[in-house]
Amino acid sequence: MFISFEGTEGVGKTTLIRKLHEHFQHLAKDVVLTREPGGTPMAEQIRSLLLSVNHEETMSNDTELLLMYAARAQHLEAVILPALAADKIVLCDRFTDSSFAYQCAGRGLDREKLKVLNDGFVARMPDITFWLDAPIETGMLRARERGALDRFEQEKATFFEKVRSGFAEIHENEPARMKRLDATQTPEQVFQQALLHLQQI
Amino acid sequence: MFISFEGTEGVGKTTLIRKLHEHFQHLAKDVVLTREPGGTPMAEQIRSLLLSVNHEETMSNDTELLLMYAARAQHLEAVILPALAADKIVLCDRFTDSSFAYQCAGRGLDREKLKVLNDGFVARMPDITFWLDAPIETGMLRARERGALDRFEQEKATFFEKVRSGFAEIHENEPARMKRLDATQTPEQVFQQALLHLQQI
Repeated sequence: MFISFEGTEGVGKTTLIRKLHEHFQHLAKDVVLTREPGGTPMAEQIRSLLLSVNHEETMSNDTELLLMYAARAQHLEAVILPALAADKIVLCDRFTDSSFAYQCAGRGLDREKLKVLNDGFVARMPDITFWLDAPIETGMLRARERGALDRFEQEKATFFEKVRSGFAEIHENEPARMKRLDATQTPEQVFQQALLHLQQI
Repeated sequence: MFISFEGTEGVGKTTLIRKLHEHFQHLAKDVVLTREPGGTPMAEQIRSLLLSVNHEETMSNDTELLLMYAARAQHLEAVILPALAADKIVLCDRFTDSSFAYQCAGRGLDREKLKVLNDGFVARMPDITFWLDAPIETGMLRARERGALDRFEQEKATFFEKVRSGFAEIHENEPARMKRLDATQTPEQVFQQALLHLQQI
């Protein structure tokens, strides 16, 4: 089973992933924890290019999108597909939905470009995606408490509103795959929401 | 004018570019010298990922292709398009034809994937492309004399034969853009061949 986790900054993805990891371990399941962009040493190198703040040169929208998909192709081939083939559960922090939400809904990149990359370079979609949804201010507060902000976290609140509406759009179009969790609740309550959905698969 | 230079390793691209650069400078033209993958600090970082030899993790074909196009998108937006807009002559060591020759013809990557990336992410093609063609052994000898071989140069001769046939295929399909130069001749003769083609534009 391939599960991905989506949402804007500070909505509690890491905590939910940790709780689900423990849950599956109690059930004696093999679990692989991974994240995007990244997930392999090579993809992590691409991730660090993506997240670094460069004041000399602005990264073009196309470059950002293509780097995301380069990291994703490596991650799929080296980590996700082999784990699924070995019957492991894959818990992945962010996947293609983040590309849609951040690059298309957030930065206004041509949706057709994303579709072309998804169709051509994403061999496997998640079986279920948890979208942790909370008002932007809630998440921003939590992200700031964690310390220095990376290039994505430095964006303005209006940007994150667009990103959130991007996730909402996917949720509307693919309700069977993407499940919305109310991330204003406590971590334990969010975990229980996720478990309910998993029981219905 | 946007001119690109293609060919397998050691065929003399660098020498021809230097000669054409001097030629245009004598004509008091503004010239921008650049190369792919690379051409901007950010794209050069992507280039170093592409060229580094990693014994821990094999780079997937898709990853290689997407990194190439990420570097290219940055190079186009930050260097090539602004230079052309300012009426400069751009001399570019490798461009999209290398992706076709190395990834598709050489490594057997799906041509449809490349087409999708060219159509979606390459805003501008060269006005003229010089393909420096020579038997593989000739070039390999020269490349070895230069010292340590990078990840591409370490490939076997059979691979480079396929790459060469990839360039030949482009030359056949796009004779108006891609001009074949006989690279077994002396650097001065190769330069004169190029000048003849430029006079016919």
